Amino acid sequence: MPSPQQMHLMLFPMFTGAHVAGWRHEGADPGRMHDIDFHREIVQMAEQAKFDAVFYSDAQGFRTIVGRDVHSRNDVARMDPLILLSALAMVSRRIGLIATLSTSYNEPYSAARRLASLDHVSHGRAGWNVVTSTTKNEARNFGREAHFGHAERYARAEEFVDVAKGLWDSWDDDAFVVDKAEGRFFDPGKLHGLDHKGKFFSVVGPLTTARSPQGHPVIVQAGASEAGQALAARTADVVFTSNPNLESAQAFYKAFKAKVVAAGRAPADCKILPSIQPIIAATDDEARAIADNLVSLIHPDVAISMLELALGGEIDLRAFDPNGPLPPIPSTEGSKSTQAKVIAMGDGLSIMQLARRIAAARTSSALVGSPERVADELEAWFRAGAADGFVIAAPYLPGSLKAFCDGVVPILQQRGLFRTDYAGVTLRDHLGLDRPENARTGRPDRHAEPEIWQPD
Amino acid sequence: MPSPQQMHLMLFPMFTGAHVAGWRHEGADPGRMHDIDFHREIVQMAEQAKFDAVFYSDAQGFRTIVGRDVHSRNDVARMDPLILLSALAMVSRRIGLIATLSTSYNEPYSAARRLASLDHVSHGRAGWNVVTSTTKNEARNFGREAHFGHAERYARAEEFVDVAKGLWDSWDDDAFVVDKAEGRFFDPGKLHGLDHKGKFFSVVGPLTTARSPQGHPVIVQAGASEAGQALAARTADVVFTSNPNLESAQAFYKAFKAKVVAAGRAPADCKILPSIQPIIAATDDEARAIADNLVSLIHPDVAISMLELALGGEIDLRAFDPNGPLPPIPSTEGSKSTQAKVIAMGDGLSIMQLARRIAAARTSSALVGSPERVADELEAWFRAGAADGFVIAAPYLPGSLKAFCDGVVPILQQRGLFRTDYAGVTLRDHLGLDRPENARTGRPDRHAEPEIWQPD
Repeated sequence: MPSPQQMHLMLFPMFTGAHVAGWRHEGADPGRMHDIDFHREIVQMAEQAKFDAVFYSDAQGFRTIVGRDVHSRNDVARMDPLILLSALAMVSRRIGLIATLSTSYNEPYSAARRLASLDHVSHGRAGWNVVTSTTKNEARNFGREAHFGHAERYARAEEFVDVAKGLWDSWDDDAFVVDKAEGRFFDPGKLHGLDHKGKFFSVVGPLTTARSPQGHPVIVQAGASEAGQALAARTADVVFTSNPNLESAQAFYKAFKAKVVAAGRAPADCKILPSIQPIIAATDDEARAIADNLVSLIHPDVAISMLELALGGEIDLRAFDPNGPLPPIPSTEGSKSTQAKVIAMGDGLSIMQLARRIAAARTSSALVGSPERVADELEAWFRAGAADGFVIAAPYLPGSLKAFCDGVVPILQQRGLFRTDYAGVTLRDHLGLDRPENARTGRPDRHAEPEIWQPD
Repeated sequence: MPSPQQMHLMLFPMFTGAHVAGWRHEGADPGRMHDIDFHREIVQMAEQAKFDAVFYSDAQGFRTIVGRDVHSRNDVARMDPLILLSALAMVSRRIGLIATLSTSYNEPYSAARRLASLDHVSHGRAGWNVVTSTTKNEARNFGREAHFGHAERYARAEEFVDVAKGLWDSWDDDAFVVDKAEGRFFDPGKLHGLDHKGKFFSVVGPLTTARSPQGHPVIVQAGASEAGQALAARTADVVFTSNPNLESAQAFYKAFKAKVVAAGRAPADCKILPSIQPIIAATDDEARAIADNLVSLIHPDVAISMLELALGGEIDLRAFDPNGPLPPIPSTEGSKSTQAKVIAMGDGLSIMQLARRIAAARTSSALVGSPERVADELEAWFRAGAADGFVIAAPYLPGSLKAFCDGVVPILQQRGLFRTDYAGVTLRDHLGLDRPENARTGRPDRHAEPEIWQPD
């Protein structure tokens, strides 16, 4: 079990770097975004530094805006995260592998099976970043003209996660007896159908994949709206958050842990990891120069279009003076929490100032300075009850990750704040999370009746 | 380019062996079905023998019958093939990796992206076995009470493949310029939306994954019905077939190549690979003893239930004398070609005799004998214009694959009938298939207009 005195670290590479202009930095190698060896090097670097996990985002649709500045965006192409992580499972040994998979445009049977399969091939290192899809272009790749509304999206997500968890318990852990002499491959009494009929999904089960090493892959969520928090408090093992400062992070931490407890769980059952974008150099001044340079590399139209997206995508800010204040923003069916946060951040800033700030860090908090300063800040947040650890949104790759691993991780280790080696094997081990019991083991199951799975 | 005088070989491991009782053989290791190292050993053995590819089947639903004999079936659990093959891509270097993925219970955007991603991580070795789903239990895992009818299933498959191919051409091969100094990541003129609106799918595109090393992953099909053959003649690079004898294989080969030509393609553009289940020992008598032993290990209820499934799943044969002839069989919405073939095979046989024959080889032709006899037979089929190569459905693993690789492959190589090393890098190279041009490169594309991908 990891010490509660040690933080968790997860890498968010955003494929070729989390800063929108990071790909233009000299320490970036963005032309290799579809080169598996590039991702191998990144993940092996993070594993060498003993990160808990790496997680890949996803988008099943084009997110940027053609005709304004699209040519400078590097997040237009990527690989399917579950495919990428399955490959990376074979060139890593301990680091957790978390895939983003949307509940909006997937089916729970297929999703549960792919995630369980990743858990098998990685010997228990799979995680699932549960998201809902909020862009029109994703909807329009799946036969819809608009994405689901906010309430429907979360209701669907909740049912989706429940179905997936039910399917993961289709088999008892010891269901496969594989007795050659007797000709018994498995024990039918240890197989459980699901027979789920809900509002969004109808799934008879069982899953055609054995229960996986972790029982259930680790569930990660980032939704910060009320509905997102309610879902996370009940079902998530880890939540990714975004807080602009220590005070807001503390407040969120305290309030969210209370929700976890109210959902009948222990506070430690759900880890809270704010997202940080570290920009590190030998001195604070040098780090600041890198940060300023990265901001200067952002095309103004990119900044404005990212601000539009963060505000819900319903407004065209080109109609307004970039040096003036934000106009009133229509309410969104996209991420309500992101919209509210961005509007609050804009107080006292011009549109362009806000846009550059949003574009620079996306939803992560920038953390700029020497390794000591960055380590001090992470320690302060950790000790102040603002975080169980951090998502490290590396602004450019591989350079900024190397700077973090070489500079910050050893300081955290020297201070006893981070592991010097993995104590366990699975992602649950790294996080100090129990392997879930199979709630159906030993329970008589009407699905074992002969009539349930008649020949097709 | 491979010589037209050399055959192609693909391994069909069926996870733990293609013979329904193969898992009980002493040369089988079926308890490792979810162990990635087991699959690694199998694929590395096939690559050492220079197989063109390995292909994994799939089923997104439980196929067997609870309450009769289910405990002896070993095909109840497996991993998602795309996840498994992505992992195997990292522990192999040349062998092709073909995943079965159903057009019935997937969406083309997600499918195209996963397959393109496998092509990226494997450096051009991905293939897609295009199937339709024909079991009630798959339907019932995806919100339906029954699977799609035969005609609808194939119409959906045809549109699905067309959409996938369109999405794979979303980007020109040289679309990503990655010019740091100028801040140009890609050339918007080399990006193509799809804007597909069809009977089954509406997909705006573009794919968020770059064009893959093979341009399009290799398309494989096995449908033998008229609708299946029409689809394959138009779109498939490889067809898997099942023929009970040389004469029927020759007739199919000739007729199908004519359909390929009628579809405007060259005969060599689509390879025909009959499925063979080889049972090999030092002498013919020893091989026959293994085959007989495997048949004796099949539970009678398994045989009957597999026969029911092959006949379309609408009949319960337990109501009939197993030593009597087949009763009239209701027509099926499942695989019509399989049903017709099985009824024809049953002529003069009792229900149980037919059931054991079906169960023993599934839809592959058994080929029992010494390495010389098996090699002779493969050579005879190949030289007689009955096959461009073969699918080797290994009856038990790893034993039967080792027997084939150690015994048969060297003979084929000595005779000049099979490669002694890979001449190329991609699966298309192994098969002598051209890399498809991107039909949209250089064409003005109205999808590049600013309005198409507005902010979401």
